[in-house]
Formats: sequence, C-alpha cells, structure tokens
Amino acid sequence: MTQNRPTRVGIVGASGYAGEELVRLLLGHPRVELSLVTSRQYAGKTLGEIFPRFAHHPRAQALKFVEPELSRTREQSDIVFLALPHGVSAEIGGSLVDTGSRVIDLSADFRLRDASVYKEFYGQEHARPDLLAGAVYGLPEIYRREIVEAKLVACPGCYPTSILLPLLPLVRSGLVDADRILVASLSGVTGAGRKVEPDYLFAECNESMRPYGVPKHRHLSEIEQELAKVAGRKMAVQFTPHLVPLNRGIVSTIYCDLVGPPDDEAISVLFREAYGSEPFVRLLGRKQLPDTKNVALTNFIDIGWRIDPRTRRLVVMSAIDNLTRGTSGQAVQCLNLMRGYAEREGLA
Amino acid sequence: MTQNRPTRVGIVGASGYAGEELVRLLLGHPRVELSLVTSRQYAGKTLGEIFPRFAHHPRAQALKFVEPELSRTREQSDIVFLALPHGVSAEIGGSLVDTGSRVIDLSADFRLRDASVYKEFYGQEHARPDLLAGAVYGLPEIYRREIVEAKLVACPGCYPTSILLPLLPLVRSGLVDADRILVASLSGVTGAGRKVEPDYLFAECNESMRPYGVPKHRHLSEIEQELAKVAGRKMAVQFTPHLVPLNRGIVSTIYCDLVGPPDDEAISVLFREAYGSEPFVRLLGRKQLPDTKNVALTNFIDIGWRIDPRTRRLVVMSAIDNLTRGTSGQAVQCLNLMRGYAEREGLA
Amino acid sequence: MTQNRPTRVGIVGASGYAGEELVRLLLGHPRVELSLVTSRQYAGKTLGEIFPRFAHHPRAQALKFVEPELSRTREQSDIVFLALPHGVSAEIGGSLVDTGSRVIDLSADFRLRDASVYKEFYGQEHARPDLLAGAVYGLPEIYRREIVEAKLVACPGCYPTSILLPLLPLVRSGLVDADRILVASLSGVTGAGRKVEPDYLFAECNESMRPYGVPKHRHLSEIEQELAKVAGRKMAVQFTPHLVPLNRGIVSTIYCDLVGPPDDEAISVLFREAYGSEPFVRLLGRKQLPDTKNVALTNFIDIGWRIDPRTRRLVVMSAIDNLTRGTSGQAVQCLNLMRGYAEREGLA
Amino acid sequence: MTQNRPTRVGIVGASGYAGEELVRLLLGHPRVELSLVTSRQYAGKTLGEIFPRFAHHPRAQALKFVEPELSRTREQSDIVFLALPHGVSAEIGGSLVDTGSRVIDLSADFRLRDASVYKEFYGQEHARPDLLAGAVYGLPEIYRREIVEAKLVACPGCYPTSILLPLLPLVRSGLVDADRILVASLSGVTGAGRKVEPDYLFAECNESMRPYGVPKHRHLSEIEQELAKVAGRKMAVQFTPHLVPLNRGIVSTIYCDLVGPPDDEAISVLFREAYGSEPFVRLLGRKQLPDTKNVALTNFIDIGWRIDPRTRRLVVMSAIDNLTRGTSGQAVQCLNLMRGYAEREGLA
Repeated sequence: MTQNRPTRVGIVGASGYAGEELVRLLLGHPRVELSLVTSRQYAGKTLGEIFPRFAHHPRAQALKFVEPELSRTREQSDIVFLALPHGVSAEIGGSLVDTGSRVIDLSADFRLRDASVYKEFYGQEHARPDLLAGAVYGLPEIYRREIVEAKLVACPGCYPTSILLPLLPLVRSGLVDADRILVASLSGVTGAGRKVEPDYLFAECNESMRPYGVPKHRHLSEIEQELAKVAGRKMAVQFTPHLVPLNRGIVSTIYCDLVGPPDDEAISVLFREAYGSEPFVRLLGRKQLPDTKNVALTNFIDIGWRIDPRTRRLVVMSAIDNLTRGTSGQAVQCLNLMRGYAEREGLA
Repeated sequence: MTQNRPTRVGIVGASGYAGEELVRLLLGHPRVELSLVTSRQYAGKTLGEIFPRFAHHPRAQALKFVEPELSRTREQSDIVFLALPHGVSAEIGGSLVDTGSRVIDLSADFRLRDASVYKEFYGQEHARPDLLAGAVYGLPEIYRREIVEAKLVACPGCYPTSILLPLLPLVRSGLVDADRILVASLSGVTGAGRKVEPDYLFAECNESMRPYGVPKHRHLSEIEQELAKVAGRKMAVQFTPHLVPLNRGIVSTIYCDLVGPPDDEAISVLFREAYGSEPFVRLLGRKQLPDTKNVALTNFIDIGWRIDPRTRRLVVMSAIDNLTRGTSGQAVQCLNLMRGYAEREGLA
Repeated sequence: MTQNRPTRVGIVGASGYAGEELVRLLLGHPRVELSLVTSRQYAGKTLGEIFPRFAHHPRAQALKFVEPELSRTREQSDIVFLALPHGVSAEIGGSLVDTGSRVIDLSADFRLRDASVYKEFYGQEHARPDLLAGAVYGLPEIYRREIVEAKLVACPGCYPTSILLPLLPLVRSGLVDADRILVASLSGVTGAGRKVEPDYLFAECNESMRPYGVPKHRHLSEIEQELAKVAGRKMAVQFTPHLVPLNRGIVSTIYCDLVGPPDDEAISVLFREAYGSEPFVRLLGRKQLPDTKNVALTNFIDIGWRIDPRTRRLVVMSAIDNLTRGTSGQAVQCLNLMRGYAEREGLA
Repeated sequence: MTQNRPTRVGIVGASGYAGEELVRLLLGHPRVELSLVTSRQYAGKTLGEIFPRFAHHPRAQALKFVEPELSRTREQSDIVFLALPHGVSAEIGGSLVDTGSRVIDLSADFRLRDASVYKEFYGQEHARPDLLAGAVYGLPEIYRREIVEAKLVACPGCYPTSILLPLLPLVRSGLVDADRILVASLSGVTGAGRKVEPDYLFAECNESMRPYGVPKHRHLSEIEQELAKVAGRKMAVQFTPHLVPLNRGIVSTIYCDLVGPPDDEAISVLFREAYGSEPFVRLLGRKQLPDTKNVALTNFIDIGWRIDPRTRRLVVMSAIDNLTRGTSGQAVQCLNLMRGYAEREGLA
C-alpha cells in the first residue's frame, strides 16, 4: 500500500443518514479522497447541493452523485462503503467482492454467519450465502486482526455495538450468567434512517416515547451470534428498544446475574484489561453514569456499571452516538485498520 | 356529605409542577372550589399572575397565594392537598390530620408503612411514624375502598404507579416469578419537579439521555412494599430509571419470568379481570404498544404486553403522564372517591 | 333549533392533524354528537383504532371511518367540517352547500373573496367562484354576527388568525401606518399538517430553525384581504414565517409605525375596547410577553405589546396554539355561534 | 513569533457554555496548548472530570481548574480568553492588558466605544473606560487588520454577529434605507448561558416559544454602534429576539427598505464582493434559505436573501451557531489572526 497517495473511497447509497455521516467523516479524513457517491435520487447534483452543511468544502462542490454502476464504482474506489437497505446490499456487495473490491457494508446483510438465521430475522433468502463465512464482523475491539485483512467487513448494527462491547468480556469471563441477559435500549430517531414514514414525523416523535420491535427485534440475531461465540453455546437474550425524541444517541442498560459473590474490583479489572488501552472506549467505572450528550458526534462508547448487592445483579450502561460509533464512525475505524492508518485518523 | 355545595380544596405548596397540575385539574373540576393555595415564594400574588396559562379563569384571577398557616388551611378546606418536599410533608400533614383535616399527600412521606425503610431510603427519621399505619396508599384500582374512608392518603410516586398497576395482578396470580422482576423506566423531565439545578437546564437535557439513581432509586421502597403485600414475602426488584428529553411521560418496561408455559390467553384474561371495568386503565393487549403521547395530560395508564417464547418471559409495557396519572390526576381520582363523586369527575 | 338534541357533526377528511384536533374537541363537546368521520385511507377502522389517545371514548370505539360520500354526509350531519386539502375542499364543500348543508371549511378554498387572488396565490382556478361572495370568514371576534347565520364558513389560516386579531383594531383605528406593516411569525411543526415529506421528519426539524415561504407565503392573500377591508384600500404586508422545533404554537411579532406620538394608554384602551369582553382573547398589555406554552391546547390568543420610543414603532406579539385557535378550536367556536350555543361550550 | 512552539492559551471563567465551547475548539487546535483554565467553582478538578465529553483527551485529563489569579494567568498564557460576566470582565481584562497580556474578551465589556452607552444599556459604570478606544471589535471580516495587531479584542455578541455581517455591506453600499432597519431573531437556549434560573429549565423551554427583551435588548448598543460607523450617523434599529427550544443556533431575519428599484443582481454582486472569498461566510443567494442545522458546531454564517417586489423590501436571513460563530469560534478565528495562523486553523 502506498502511504503517499490518499485512499480513494466510494459510497454507494449516500443519501440516507448513514451515508451523510460517512460523508461528514470522510470529507475531514486526512488520508481519504472521497472519489464517488452514488444515489439514484440525486444523480447529477453535487454533494454540496444536497447536503448544504458541506457546501463550503471544495470536494463537496466538485463531486456529483452518480447512478450506481458496478464497473465505475470498482474503478474509482480502493474501498467501497455500502449504505444500502438490506437485501440490496447482498447483491451489490457480492458483485463488488467477486471482482476484487474491498467492501465495508453498513447493512445487515453480511453480519450473520448462518443464512437460515438471516432468513428467520429478515424474512428473505440471502442472495449470497457463499460470502457469509468470509465476511468479518466490523467490531474493531473484537475483530481487529481480521478487519486488517478483510475483503468484506459487515459493520455491526447500532444497538449491537452498544450492547456487545460491554457484554462480550463479561460473558467470556464467566462472571455473569450468559443465559439470563436482559437489555433495555433507548435510541434517538436517526436510528430509523431517513425513512419518510408517518411514524418518524416530527410531531409523532416529539413528546413521545415508545417501545417497539418487542420481543424479537432483528438486531437480536447478531447479538446472540456474537455472544454465542464466546459463550460456546446458543444464546437467547431479552432485548427491548425504545424510540426517544432526540436526534442522535443510544443508551443501553444491560442486566446480568452475577455467578459468584458481588465483586466490584473484579468487574473493574475485567473492563480495564479488555478496553483499558482502546482509543474509543471510555470506562466510567463506578463514578459516573453515561449520557448520550457526552458521545454525540464522536466514535466513543462510554461504559459505566454498578453492582446491585440487593439483587446480586450487575447493571452495565453504555452510551454511543448511533450514527457515529453505531454506524459510520465505526466503519471509518475499520477503514483505518484495512489501510494501515492510525485508528484515530479522521475520527478525532 | 352535602352534594350541593362544592368541596373546598386547599393546596399547600402549589408552586411546583405537581401543584400547578393540581391547579389545572381543580380549576376545571365541576364539584370543587379551589379555596386556598399556599406558597412562601408567591404569597400575595394571584394564581393567574404566577401561572399565566390560567389567567382567564375567574378563580385564578381572584385567588391569591398565602403563606402556609395551619389554622387557615384547616378552616378553609374540606380536603387539603400537600405538594411539598418529603420531610416537610410529614410534619405539616401530621398536624393537619391531628386536628381532623382530610389530607391527600403527594410526597413520599406517608407511602411506607415501616419507618425504618423510610429512613433507609430517604436518609432521615420519620417525623410522624405514628401515622404510617393509618395512611392509605392512593392507588385507586387497588385501595379504592380504603381511600373512600381515608383520613390521610399517600399518593404513589410516578414510577411506582406505572409499575405497580401492571405488576400487582401478575404477582398476585402467581403466573410470574416474583423474585426475578426487572423494570427499566423512562421519564420526561418534569418528573424531577421544578428543581432549579444545572442538571435540569434545557441544554443539559435536550439531546441527552441518561440512566440515574442506579441501582437503588427511592421509589423501590414503595414498589417492593406493595409487591410484598401480594407476594406474601419480602421482595427485591431491579429498577433503572432514565431521564429522557420530553416534558411529560413515563414508559415502564417490565420483565417477568413466567412460572408455567407461555399462555397469552391467561395473561389477557388476568388483565381483563383486574382492570376490564376500570375507568382509567386501557389494556392494549397484544395489538399495540404504549406511547406516552397517547396519555399526555390524561389520567390513563396504557398497558401492553408480549410473551417472548424464546426466553419464556413476559414483557409488560406501560405509559402514563407522570404529572397527571403519576401525580396530581391520581390524587384527584382519590379526592373523587373520598367525596363520593364519580371517579371520572374533573378528569375526563 | 332544538336545544335538547345534540348537533350531529360530520368531519370529512379526519385523518390529518386538523381533523384529529376536531375529533379531540368534538368528543368532549357536551352539545355535539360526532356522527360521521370520513377517510379513504382509514375506512372501516374505528376512530379509537386510528387515534389510540381516544380509545377509551365510547363514541371513538363505535364510530368507524367511512369513504366520503355526499349523500351520507348530508344525511348524517347537521354541520359538516371539511378538513381537506385546498382545491378538493371547494368541490366537495360546494356540492354540500348546493344541497343545503351548513359547512365549516378548514381549507383555504373559501377564504378569499376574489377568485383571481385565489389563482395568484394557490396556482389553480377556483372550482366554485360563485360561492365566494356568500362565504363568511370565520374569525368570530370580527364576523360574529355573520357566522351565526352562515351557510358556509371559511376558517382563517393559523398565521392569519395570530396576525389579524392584533392588527385589525389597530388598522381600523388609524393609529398605525397600514402601509408599513411587517410580521415575523414562528410556527411549530404541526402547522405543516401530517405531511409525510422529508422536510418534516423528526431529525430534519429537531435542532433546526428556518425561514420559509419568503417573500410571498399563501396566507398573505387573506391577511391583506381582511386588512384592506378595514383600511379601505389595497394592502401589501411583509410576512416571514419560520419553522421551529415544537409541536404546537405560533408566535407572531408584528411591527407597526405609529402615526402620532407614542401613547401607551391609547393602545391599551384600543385593545380593551376591541377585546376586553371576548372569551378567548387575553390581553397581556405591558406587563407580560406571550409564550406559546400558555396557550397550548386552548382556544386563547394572548396579545402583548410594547411601544419602542426610540423608533416610534409599536411591537405587538401574539401567541396561539396553531391547531386549536389557529384551526380546529376556532372552527368549533364558529359551530357554537352557528348553533346558538355558548361560545365557550366544549372549548373550556 | 515562534511558529514552532504552540501558543499557550488560558481561559478565565471556563465553566459556562462559552468557556466549554472554547475548550472544545482549543483542545482540537493544532497550534494551541490549553495552558490554564480558571473556575472558582471547579478549582482542583480536571477538565475531564467537569466536562466528561473531553475525558479521553490527555490534556483534559491533566489540566486542572485553578482559582483565577492574575500573575499566574499572565505567566502561563500567551493569549487570555475571558469568558466572564460583564462587569467582572472589565476589571480583570483591564488588569491583564495593563501588564501586557493580549486578551480576547467574550463579554460585552469592551464592545462599546462610548462608556455612557455602556451605562445606558448595562446599567453600571464602566470600570475601565480608558481602554475602550483601543479595544478592537472582533468581527474578523470587518476588522481583520486591526485584530492582527490588537492587544484587546472584544468579541461581538451572538445576535450582533448574525445581524452585522449581513447588514454592514448593505448599509455601506447605500442600497438600503439605514433608518428603517428591522430585525427579528430566534435563538436556541444556550444563548442564555448556563444560567441556573427557572426560565431556562427544560420543561419551561421545551414546547415554548417567546419573544423577550422587547424593545431594547442590550445587543442593540453594539449593533447600532457598528452600523453608525458605516452609515456615518446615529442609528436606531428595531430588534426582537425570541427564545426557541433548541440547543444551538440563531436565525436572524432582517428587513431593509430598498432605496432604488429592486435589483437582485446588485445585491448578489454586493455580497459576493464583500464576502466571496471569506472562509467562513457561505452565500446562499436566491436558491436556498438558511437553516441552523447546516451551521451547527461550525464557524460558518449562512446568508440568504430575497427581494419582495410587492413591498420593495429586501429580506436577508442569516443562520449561525450561537456558541461557535456567535461566541467562541469567532474568538478562535481572532486568535488565529493575532498569532499569524491560517484563519481556518482549528475551525475546520
């Protein structure tokens, strides 16, 4: 890899919130040249015209959206980000991988290793089950080495990111009962994407709070898959998401039954060992509780915890920005790994 | 009781959100005359001057805040509402009860039957432990008969209202494991009262979500007391509240382990039998999930549920307006019972 | 008119925010029976299914949406409210009026007396110009007498309501220069209706403020028409609306050049004479400034003012709830007039 | 000036929103070392403890708040930012300037050239009138040259920034009638600072909109001073601010009477000549209207305009982030000028 020339990066499907967040991060990334953005809807318009917040940026003034076209995408990009609906991503991503492109997929299509689980949770046959085994789950703290070499990275969902990072070391350690995990999550409205549906109108969300996707939200499939890997057996997790009136942010509150006697220090040591030197994990420990406003527009995950001696449960709470750490920032962290850049590059 | 003359109602401590909500409801109550409002801060001002939203109301134009004074309060009121901080309420409420007033207390002071639990959770000695045995917990669906005759009603906290109404019939029925109950709640910012503290400034709450009071929020004391009564043994519940950027509303998501095999119909029957004819409980059943915007400014509690066959858990979700059903509306429902009025009076 | 039997009221187009607000008000109106609600989209469903906030109401449980059909609408309603897009309203409203129905139209279709102005501002030919002369502009404080007898009431737009009520007495009085009027208005997002468009998604409105419709918003046509009537000549007003992230509310700040020397007392007298005995106008005078939170969910308009001695301008500020006073509440006020009910009935 | 060593920057009064925004910008500034932060309230705590959003930053972990002390401030800083209440700033700023420090003041204390105007608008004697003549008004587009050499920069208020940048070229050009300027502004709640007062509690601001400071807001003093300079005579501007429920942002809508015939092209040329090559001004021209969400967390001002041929008025609309462009970002832009750095440094 030539370090001197910037990485040419294409975004297929750049018109949603995940795509826009990628644009934000990549326009500011010192090692990247945003080389291609596709959108059927906006073809012919510049980035700056569609996203006025970037209108001053020379690249946003120059770069026009184009229709998605495989050969052009391949030729103009060293790395391709896919910010497409699930189902669509499997096909386009598959074709790109077939012809040698390195792909970072933001959809759910390559997150699951088992095509039948995909069908169970997403309600359709997987278009490219042959690629599932080789795809890497893009959680850098867990799969750093695999991401470096990956041809195809499947970025985790926003809820799973906020849940797996706290849970994986706990389940691996055996300190908690993996069969009794329970999670309540709260998400800002951009988590639904730029879906033009009545449920996401301002006046339907403002002054509203509501659980949804009960009891079997799609993100359970990847949460359980990853936990099963470290637990060494099939998992069933309880998970309830709630929609809350803010733009950006997820809080996940995770309840675990402790296996042994309550031991604050053991939990602290465990988290410090797992994440103490990670650039994007902030351990709040027992002093502080997480708040989404502290992670807004950043790639950080803040993790706090408390042991409840009355119930012998551990309560772990995490906060992320669903669009940055939960989606596009984490994808850029993967890009940095894949290109040998410092992991913080463009994510400061 | 003379039905022809309106009930004279006094509010001691009418300057906070609970007091203001009482004013809103009582000004519109056809059987009530708001006879006295006290506030050290606002003494001498009319209700309409302090709360411009009521400025058109003849009573709000006429009625002036006065300094709290026991004898006047007693003389001018058939029923006294106390909207005071805990600790203060016990003393003033006690003196009023001593001299024969009927009191509806919105603070936590008379909710617990055990003064040592009060001390454990509220950090101070109870001023009037002699009154605890006689106070009635003001949850009308559960203590309707006792409220009718009560001298001293202790209105439940906002979280407990949203949690106990769904849980009490479940625990009583034995269908769920009372020892493994877990609750995640979300509250709008008026839940903190009109506290002038940095944490509750607009820019600290807007675009913010955060858990707090982990793991031992004060409301646990009354939740566990009431559940213990129907369970017949000591309880320890897991409860995590979260602060969310809206004005009014609580959502509680309650997780229960089912004791027997999953049986949707049994749960439905149970809830219908418990609340099918209640004027202020709306059972959403399996069709719908609760949303705070459907209960805003009303005395309703909306209750929905789902069985998760994968985990054999029952997930029950409730929504209330924390100021109406969670505080002042429920207090007015108690007033209606105490005065023999139709329970919906003034709460339509 | 028989006072003993309730007025049967139909709503044609009850699925938008204006229609839902009518439902809210009419379900609580003691003299009204909601007899018919039409909606192509929701035909066959009950009111309670579509609007869960009314699910407890017996009428909302019983009444099903039906397809709009002229003869049924006519037969089942003493008064018909139209909550339809402009253009559609003219046709349906016209047919109803032709066959003797009394109609209260919430669209813009019958507000203008001149079909060419309609075409200029709404970009289409008027379907029923023959009805324009007979329609009554539904601003009760100004056209009370005409509304009582009206066959066809055209309810004012939300901005015009907030602007005309303060301005009409001023312009009529000659105290201000009618040729130099300037208005800046702010509106909550329900003002756009339940339009499922990207611009009104939560995340596009939250943390956003923006002017729009500059310089020639459609509501100027009715503002200028009504001012011209009292000024006795053609008017051109400057008007800029802004979209602001809240659900309900309009604030209009109105600037007038004083013709004579600044005279606070003259302005106060003028407003008191115009509105001192009006049930839904609250004059804040010089003590207070309006705030939308004081009028939310009510039919009040709050009007405050200040003279700026430095510029010799009068600044008048009004606040209304755009859905209640700005749309459906005012329409119910008209209904009360048309049926001989007390003007406050159902609007307390 | 040594380019190789970073500029040591101190912030006196770093605990409010302006101070926190300075911290955010300066921690990311490649040429700056944040060398000192003072706060009586937080002395002894690290930046990271008080502002958890910066907790990962090595400098925020190391740097502790100290009590404000003149000699230390002077010794440890090449440039001192003052983020203090007005009145306090004049004294401390004066002392620092006396002993040779270069000061960038965010308060109102050094914005006015005339101490009697200060007294009129701020209600107190100016502590250091001797410094007023030498202070530079920190609007970089207008006073760039003076800022480069300045000892004492007085950063403009947030409203004045949003108003003066659009207006100054217009008034200077003579295309508009300087005697009839009228401005309506909308501000997010951080504009009030971190004031712990009931008016700024979440539930008092959310779902609320309200004008305030009518008719003589303090910021008029600097607006009129700067306009008078280019107009060559005393000015009286009409200005009404409104408080709106969002965190960050100001929209100003400015009305000018055109002196000659409406000429879109002349206005465009004027703005292009004034600001076409400015790094932080984005001219939206006639295609687009400004929206605060496009400038959030940036130092840009977006300026759009429309001529109304019906009234022969020019309507100019601007949007800024009140904390960045309106306060601390603009201050950093001044710092860059004072230290010979590229103007965009640390503000990208």
